[in-house]
Parts: sequence; C-alpha cells; structure tokens
Amino acid sequence: MILTNGVDPKQYVDGVLQGQRRSIAKAITLVESSLPEHRKLAATMMEGLLPFTGKSVRLGITGVPGVGKSTFVENLGILLVEDGFKVAVLAVDPSSSRSGGSILGDKTRMERLAAHPSTFIRPSPSGETLGGVAAKTRETLLVCEAAGYDVVLVETVGVGQSETSVATMVDFFLALMITGAGDELQGIKKGVLEVADAIAINKCDGDNIDRAEKARLEFEIAMHIVTPESSSWRPPVCTCSSILENGTRNVWDTVLEHKKIMTGTGEFALRRKRQSLSWMWALVEEGLKARFRQNSRISKRIPEISGSVEQELISPSAAADELLSYL
Amino acid sequence: MILTNGVDPKQYVDGVLQGQRRSIAKAITLVESSLPEHRKLAATMMEGLLPFTGKSVRLGITGVPGVGKSTFVENLGILLVEDGFKVAVLAVDPSSSRSGGSILGDKTRMERLAAHPSTFIRPSPSGETLGGVAAKTRETLLVCEAAGYDVVLVETVGVGQSETSVATMVDFFLALMITGAGDELQGIKKGVLEVADAIAINKCDGDNIDRAEKARLEFEIAMHIVTPESSSWRPPVCTCSSILENGTRNVWDTVLEHKKIMTGTGEFALRRKRQSLSWMWALVEEGLKARFRQNSRISKRIPEISGSVEQELISPSAAADELLSYL
Repeated sequence: MILTNGVDPKQYVDGVLQGQRRSIAKAITLVESSLPEHRKLAATMMEGLLPFTGKSVRLGITGVPGVGKSTFVENLGILLVEDGFKVAVLAVDPSSSRSGGSILGDKTRMERLAAHPSTFIRPSPSGETLGGVAAKTRETLLVCEAAGYDVVLVETVGVGQSETSVATMVDFFLALMITGAGDELQGIKKGVLEVADAIAINKCDGDNIDRAEKARLEFEIAMHIVTPESSSWRPPVCTCSSILENGTRNVWDTVLEHKKIMTGTGEFALRRKRQSLSWMWALVEEGLKARFRQNSRISKRIPEISGSVEQELISPSAAADELLSYL
Repeated sequence: MILTNGVDPKQYVDGVLQGQRRSIAKAITLVESSLPEHRKLAATMMEGLLPFTGKSVRLGITGVPGVGKSTFVENLGILLVEDGFKVAVLAVDPSSSRSGGSILGDKTRMERLAAHPSTFIRPSPSGETLGGVAAKTRETLLVCEAAGYDVVLVETVGVGQSETSVATMVDFFLALMITGAGDELQGIKKGVLEVADAIAINKCDGDNIDRAEKARLEFEIAMHIVTPESSSWRPPVCTCSSILENGTRNVWDTVLEHKKIMTGTGEFALRRKRQSLSWMWALVEEGLKARFRQNSRISKRIPEISGSVEQELISPSAAADELLSYL
C-alpha cells in the first residue's frame, strides 16, 4: 500500500506537476481510494491540480470485445509518441477487479506502447459501481493532464452504460467496429449512436479491405438518418488498421479536425463546462441514492415492495411514496 | 373544480369499473392533482383499480411537429373503433399548460374521433417537470384500462426526453416520420432509434408514394446497423397514410404481430414488470431530488458552486460532496 497517514497533498501536487511517474501513480492511488480521509486529501490535491488541467486532447474509445481495441490504442499511441506527444492510456471497465491482474493485462496487451518513456498506462480502477469507476477515471484523467500528458486515451469495454459514462468525460468519442465473419455488418450497440463523434471500421487491411470499405459506405448511409448533436459536426465513418504503421493516422486527423471546428464555434469549451456540471449532478444523484440504500428500514422493505409492484398489487407511485416515507 | 373534500375513492373505483365517463374524468383529475391529500386518495383509488388493469394494448406514438401525429391518431383510432374496440387517447406534452386550451386543441384536432362514443380523449396533464407529467399519464393509462378501454394510445410531441418517458409506459412504441420537402430524409432524433419498436413513414399517399417508399428502404438499411433490444423482434420500417381509409391498418397489424410474438416468448409480460419496477425507482429518484432541491441551504449554494465548477476552480466531486454535506 503506497498510502500512509503522512500523505501530503501539496507534495503530490508538486510531484505531479513535475511529471514524476511515482508521484502520478501515488496521486492516482489517492484519487482511487474510497476511504473518507483519503477523499478529503484527494479533494485538496485536486484543487491544487485543477489550474493546470484542461490542456490535453481527451479521446474516448469503445468497441465490443474482439474489435481490436488494444491494438488500436497501441497503434495510435505509438503514432502519437513518435509525433512527440506524451500519451496517457486509461481504462473504464466496471467488471475488472484490481487483484485480478488487469494492470499486467493492459501492459502486456500494449507491450510496445508501455515500454515507451512518454506513455503512462493505467488500468481500470476497481469499484462495484460504474459510477464509482467513472468518477475515479475522470479525476485520474485530470491528474494526467496536470502531469503534462498531451493526449489522454480512455478505453472502455462497452459493457452496460460505460460508453455513455466515458463519452461524458472526453472531447471526442470514437466507436470502433469491425465487419463480421461473412460480409455482415456487426450491429452497433444502440447507446453508441447517441454518443459517437466518429465511427471507425477497424481491420481495414489485407483481404479485409473491400469488406471494410463496403461496411463504411453502409454505415455512412445509416448515420445520415440520425440528426447530429451539433450542427457543426456530422459524425463521420472511416476505416483504419491497427496493424499497419500509421494505420490509425486518419482517425487522429479526424480528432484534430473536430477539435479545430468545435473550438472555432465555442462548442469545445462549452462541452467541457457542461460535462463538469452534469458530472457534479450525477455525483449528487449517486450520493442521494447511496444514502437511500444505506437506510436499513428502506433496504429491508425493498424486496417486499418490489415484489408487490411486479405482481401489480400496488402501483409504482404508491411503492415509491412508501419507500420515501422511511427517510 | 370537480374535487371536493368529500372525495370517495371507493365510489370513483366503482364508477370507473362501470365505464362511466364522468367517473373516469373525476378519477383522472384526482390522479393529476398534486395536493398531498389528493395523492393519498389517488393511491387508495389506484389500489382498487389495479386488479382490473393490464388488459389493453398500450401504444406510444412519437414524431416531430408536422409529421401528422393527430391525423394519424385519428385515422388509427377510427379504424379501431370501427373494429369494435374502445379507444383512449392520452398525450404527454411537458410544454403544454392546461389553461392554454390544449383540451380544446386536442379535441378539435381529432374531431371525428372525439365524437365517437367509444373513445376517450385526454390532453396532456400540466406540470412543470416531464417526470410529473409522465407520472400522471401513466396512472391515467391505468384508469382507462380499468374502465375497459381496449387500446390506449399515448401521443408525445418528442420534445426533450418525452419519448423515452412514453416508451417506458407502453407495450409498443412507434416513431412516425415523413420525407422532407425534397427527396431528403428527415433526420430521426437520436433517442428515438433507441426505443422504437417500429418506424412508420407517414403521408405515403398521392404523389408522395414514391418518396415515402424510397425513404422506407433507406431507413430499413439504417435500422440494420442497430442491434435490436430483443432477439425476437427487429423494429420494422413501414409506410402509412393518415388520410386514406384504413391507411394505418398495416401499422396496427404490426402492433398485433409484435404482441403475439412477445407474448409467446414471455417478453410481453416481462417488459411490463420491468417498466413498473423501473418506474418505481424513477419516482424514488425524483423524490430524492425534490427533497434535495427543497433544502434551502443547498439551493442557496447551488449558483456559486455551479459557477466554481464551470470555471474549474473546484472539481465536480468536491462540489457534489459539499452540496451533499448540507443534507
């Protein structure tokens, strides 16, 4: 355990701002801790770091297992460090557990990238709820920014609501896809269309090029039926390859183009402000629900009341009124 | 004002079960009331009605203004009453205000249908929040079911999150679309793809048939990229006409086919159970948030804290912790 009672937030701030890897790791461990005293120290530390955050490009990446997320991140990461950028890679995986060896997992999966001095790779924090995992990752992202990383990649496995969660902490959200075994398109998860700033069809290499290109065209038609969030940006569909050198260059170019356009319209800064505020509210909600669940009278009644609602013996609103009455 | 201190829930229950229009109207007015004493009476009444609910087909309909929702509902409603069904039409429109004359509005828009003895048309309840409006509509739907209506149509204007809200109270959710002025497809709102059980392209009549048919094909391709919620039902895309007699018959057939398939797999009943439970939880959340907002220490601090978060002076989690500490 790195943390001791002698944790000094000020010292952590200095170390992080100097880009010391050991300090960054310690700062993140502090951010990830759920102990109340650590939370206070973390808040103080974050206050010291906040003035130095905000300068990175925050890029979220999702895709179902098998789509080649790790090789994509490695390919893009290497391209970026060779361009002279410092790159941090974070993960949001609510199903992972720290003890399960996911640190080793992530670093093994991205061996070449992990070996580079300009990269910092951090696996998903453990935590029972997606909310908890996402909260920690969000602050870890800020720590990395304060430490001078130019690009922060946040990878998510796309389980449950994790895409939505990652989409609300990044400037650009990329959905990675592949063509199926046959000529078939692999269906996109419903929630992803809501939040993707671009779709990239991966594995556009070798004898898969024609299929990937065909899939790209089909996706492009499909994307046209959806009214985009911003009138300045219609999410494009592109192809990429994680095994060819520079095979993800066009994706990076798209990210930069998006940043340029959105900065011009003011939407870039606006999106970040909105994200911060809605993040605050999400945490307030989470806190309210936690207090509710921790009420023992309520938790005892939940099974019976839920059962009555399911059997239509009482209406959902009468059930809610009863549960709230115990607060 | 229909309500008096002498409201007797039992009497309302009897009247509703006998299908008396006056009792139905009174019962709905009780359900729509926000007064605490009325809420208790409404809960008692709903308990009496619940055993008699669940037998209707609950059909939600959305579409942007101009898509022809009212004429669609009228066409479908007339078709259904002529088939011998009793039809109730409800609306969810968080922007409407009771005093604004929306009752008159709805009934004028659906003149032929409103005149039929087998129909019951109720405009959107007023209420500041979508949550409030949806809660009331959900219970109104149950009142109509208990009163013996075979089909309950819930129309929504598709503003904000109202689609999602209506989708969670119906068995089948239909998105109505039209082709644009040129050959262009009118973009579908992102959230609608998430929740639609079918898409119908309206105004497939006269010299618009070719355009509508072309749009249908394009939408069909587009819908293929989305992985459907249930493996037993892939949301179809069809065309319809609200001005031709029986012009919405195929939509109704689709609703019935869906019901048959989903009943067979058990998903029909499961969906309703899930809806009731998640509705209960939504109401609990709403109640928790209301208590939070009503706390005067909190409400006084919100503007300053929000401002600090926006300016990145404090982190969202520190802000949330502070707000929660006042509870």
